[in-house]
Amino acid sequence: MSADAADLLALLAERGWTLGTAESLTGGLVAATIVAVPGASRVFSGSVVAYDPAVKISLLGVDHDLVDRVGTVDEQVVTQMAKGAQRRLGVDVAIATTGVAGPGPSEGHPAGTVWLACATPAGIVTRRLTLTGGRATVRADAVAAALGLGHEAVSAAS
Amino acid sequence: MSADAADLLALLAERGWTLGTAESLTGGLVAATIVAVPGASRVFSGSVVAYDPAVKISLLGVDHDLVDRVGTVDEQVVTQMAKGAQRRLGVDVAIATTGVAGPGPSEGHPAGTVWLACATPAGIVTRRLTLTGGRATVRADAVAAALGLGHEAVSAAS
Repeated sequence: MSADAADLLALLAERGWTLGTAESLTGGLVAATIVAVPGASRVFSGSVVAYDPAVKISLLGVDHDLVDRVGTVDEQVVTQMAKGAQRRLGVDVAIATTGVAGPGPSEGHPAGTVWLACATPAGIVTRRLTLTGGRATVRADAVAAALGLGHEAVSAAS
Repeated sequence: MSADAADLLALLAERGWTLGTAESLTGGLVAATIVAVPGASRVFSGSVVAYDPAVKISLLGVDHDLVDRVGTVDEQVVTQMAKGAQRRLGVDVAIATTGVAGPGPSEGHPAGTVWLACATPAGIVTRRLTLTGGRATVRADAVAAALGLGHEAVSAAS
């Protein structure tokens, strides 16, 4: 069973850690799912929604040459997004998402190709997803998987 | 009838203007509502979700003394958030939200007190809302009002 936002916030509160997100294809939906939990402000600081690749570079510090070379649907890019959010938002834990919501392919990747990362004080965990369904389903499943990865990464980083 | 996200994106595309958001109580839900529209990436650049007052100051350039003096549920604060998003995201138009989602009051304001701003190349428009209902309803109504204010402000800024 995947962990939901309330589980993740409770685990972070136990650790005394703050949380932020860096979101591309989910477009703010991970953050919005987190703040739907009353009391989220005790743990959650904020998010950088970097939909435009230029914002990934300017606000999250993703390497320009990397984006030129591999595009934005990439493990190194999502890793840099998570580290950038940790730094820019001043948080202990950052969850990042990038990928193709669809309906069509993008940058040579089919819709449903998603990279997630979670940066904690203990390091970085990444995961690649291959999701099916329409734009809304891909995005909702990416949000659920991102919260689940956050819970796993924080649990392991005790 | 209030304008929805697709209407706002179509109007911005006509103008050739890009869009970003700066969100406090809506926590990324304005951005998530915008990216639910296929093709949003032609207009929408990203968002700074500044849930923690410290992020409003560090990432959006809201004045520290102002926050100390008046708190975060304030017309000047939401104005500075919108201008900060224009600058940090490099967009033509920025919509900002701050307020109290509830369930309880915050900073002396009852749940449902919301300030919105929309910054365009023609200036700033602000609006105060007094919403009723639970946390999810307040937030959903704030998102709808923010998209409506964006549409009005961009229409007027021809």
